[in-house]
Amino acid sequence: MLSHIDLMRELVKKNDHRIILLVLDGLGGLPIEPGGQTELEAARTPEMDRLAAEGCLGLTVPIRPGVAPGSGPAHLALFGYDPLEYLVGRGVLEAVGVGLKVIPGDIAARGNFCTLDSGGRITDRRAGRIRSEMAAPLVERLRGISLPGVKIEARHVKEHRFALVVRGQGLQPDLEDTDPQATGVPPLDVVARRPEAQATAELFNRWIAEAKGLLASEAHANGLTLRGFSTDPRLPSMESVYGVHPACVAVYPMYRGVSSLVGMRVLDVQGESPEDEFGAVRAAWKDFDYFFIHIKKPDSRGEDGDFAGKVEAIEAVDRALPALLQLGPEVLAITGDHSTPARLRSHSWHPVPLLLWAPATIRPDSQTTFGENACSAGGLSTIPAKDLMTLLLAHAGRLDKFGA
Amino acid sequence: MLSHIDLMRELVKKNDHRIILLVLDGLGGLPIEPGGQTELEAARTPEMDRLAAEGCLGLTVPIRPGVAPGSGPAHLALFGYDPLEYLVGRGVLEAVGVGLKVIPGDIAARGNFCTLDSGGRITDRRAGRIRSEMAAPLVERLRGISLPGVKIEARHVKEHRFALVVRGQGLQPDLEDTDPQATGVPPLDVVARRPEAQATAELFNRWIAEAKGLLASEAHANGLTLRGFSTDPRLPSMESVYGVHPACVAVYPMYRGVSSLVGMRVLDVQGESPEDEFGAVRAAWKDFDYFFIHIKKPDSRGEDGDFAGKVEAIEAVDRALPALLQLGPEVLAITGDHSTPARLRSHSWHPVPLLLWAPATIRPDSQTTFGENACSAGGLSTIPAKDLMTLLLAHAGRLDKFGA
Repeated sequence: MLSHIDLMRELVKKNDHRIILLVLDGLGGLPIEPGGQTELEAARTPEMDRLAAEGCLGLTVPIRPGVAPGSGPAHLALFGYDPLEYLVGRGVLEAVGVGLKVIPGDIAARGNFCTLDSGGRITDRRAGRIRSEMAAPLVERLRGISLPGVKIEARHVKEHRFALVVRGQGLQPDLEDTDPQATGVPPLDVVARRPEAQATAELFNRWIAEAKGLLASEAHANGLTLRGFSTDPRLPSMESVYGVHPACVAVYPMYRGVSSLVGMRVLDVQGESPEDEFGAVRAAWKDFDYFFIHIKKPDSRGEDGDFAGKVEAIEAVDRALPALLQLGPEVLAITGDHSTPARLRSHSWHPVPLLLWAPATIRPDSQTTFGENACSAGGLSTIPAKDLMTLLLAHAGRLDKFGA
Repeated sequence: MLSHIDLMRELVKKNDHRIILLVLDGLGGLPIEPGGQTELEAARTPEMDRLAAEGCLGLTVPIRPGVAPGSGPAHLALFGYDPLEYLVGRGVLEAVGVGLKVIPGDIAARGNFCTLDSGGRITDRRAGRIRSEMAAPLVERLRGISLPGVKIEARHVKEHRFALVVRGQGLQPDLEDTDPQATGVPPLDVVARRPEAQATAELFNRWIAEAKGLLASEAHANGLTLRGFSTDPRLPSMESVYGVHPACVAVYPMYRGVSSLVGMRVLDVQGESPEDEFGAVRAAWKDFDYFFIHIKKPDSRGEDGDFAGKVEAIEAVDRALPALLQLGPEVLAITGDHSTPARLRSHSWHPVPLLLWAPATIRPDSQTTFGENACSAGGLSTIPAKDLMTLLLAHAGRLDKFGA
């Protein structure tokens, strides 16, 4: 069986056509009332509707049918990586999600502050969900720990959560979580799953012992657990697999981090509006041929259960679109990484609207508006998100014929 | 690559939401005349049409495009088992299909009566398709055979076919069929494919020798062949993979047997009507959270070539539906295991209508009737039947998010 990567390496060719992948995070939605419209259907989007009329619509399945994705795997799929094949550890995602760098050989972990009783047993696995402004200084304190031969980075994430990255020689990530997933028992020691990881386990145990000393006087966050030990997954770069020279325009660290894992150049953005992000694309237009643009707000409003706010966030992108189109991309895809229906206030498994616009090569369908129902009747049908990348390349004239 | 089972074990969570999978066997059909309606489209189904309007439609592909399935693999797919990965031996399917129990370690086989000439050569591989009322007493006679150290069950299936199950210590199923697939030659001996199966081969050969003695005076069924030696495939249970506590309501032994292979509790049913089957669901409603209900008649009428009879069988289910809905399932899927168009009088490969109803989380499409054409334009698109289970779980709120 010819692997996907080998197929791509055989077919990919270069040209100067430019591809834009515009991701409205959490784009897919649900009607609030039976018979009603989704957020995208309710939004007034004359630009996207025009592109829908000129282009072709479909739906993407982020992971597998029924599986709601986190942001990491959902974006990997959009970048052309099967998220069940290219697994990125939780520690790495947490670390890159707050802007920590993780390079091959580093070990990243997710940390939780917890509350210990006088016997060292956990009484609250989340330290009473300690507020972020209380927890952040504690993480600063932990940054004071130094151990011989390694460099240690710690960064606060949110409430009781933080990320930890250790850099050094010969580190191994095959380590068990220290969170016993229960109260009334002490945190576990870091245990190596393989003999080669023994030294790394001891290193983390020394770090934990020092951290406990530094936290001993805290009322709630007087202990911690570490989970999801993992290292840079060494994903093959988009450049090596798909032959593109890719750039990422995103405001939030998580999306900048995932992009860097596949070798994208992460661009600077001044401001947070769609106009600001499109401006960053314009500034780098000559230097790259694939632009991933990430718009966070539709997902945030969806998670808030704010239907109208999500509609407005979508409309704001639509208003800014002419500036992006003016750049003259050969191929533009507008989609989401997953659905975040305001009605569910969370990521969901529902297939995600996809609009593909490529004037030179598209086979237009009969749809004239961008929305879930139009997409489900669209000419692209329902496809795995991981297959979008090859469609983009094809429409950019960047794939040779397979076989004679 | 994360396997499907590992993915499920990571994501599955429990709650008290209830799922009903209502299978109308052979549901999919074909129009008799060009431009006509299928059986389902011709049926008057106001209840299903209402559910279609509230829910979402699609089509399922039972095995792979173009492949018409038997009942066993078709149902395994609906239960979330890829039927090309989880292979169940023909002997096991034949045995459980007539209600014989097959537990790990048992060896099951399909038996055929055949006609031998005076030289022991096969003249008819099916004993002139001996009538069932003639064959059944012969199987009774074979039940008189006993061999040391094993327990042997034989049961008549239909015409020249019967099923055989041998229970004992150390039995091995790696045995060649004895049917030479030709006339003019004698049945083959049971031959072991591996040395470990040698003793089992000898055991079956002794059984065959005794059986030949008991059949010697028969005019037509004076010989037999055995095929499809196999053992319990030890399928992972639905409970272990999908976290449901499943029950089966089915009248026919085949469907009860396949359900038991995936660990479903097979419920007692008084009577054979849809009302009787739904009554069995009601009686056990509190005790399970997943109900598979099997309705045989649409398939039987399809196999008879009885278009009107299949229409009537579908309408009978529709009339009974309110009693099922009254139980208040969170998720209801109505589909078939495969198509059995009356026009073809057999199972076919045509994709199967699927209606998914789940008020809390469904993304409704614009379809308002349940039928093949509506389904092909439905919001669920065309999916592999094996993916239905994860969709059911998702809509029941029983799957966690994948990745961070």
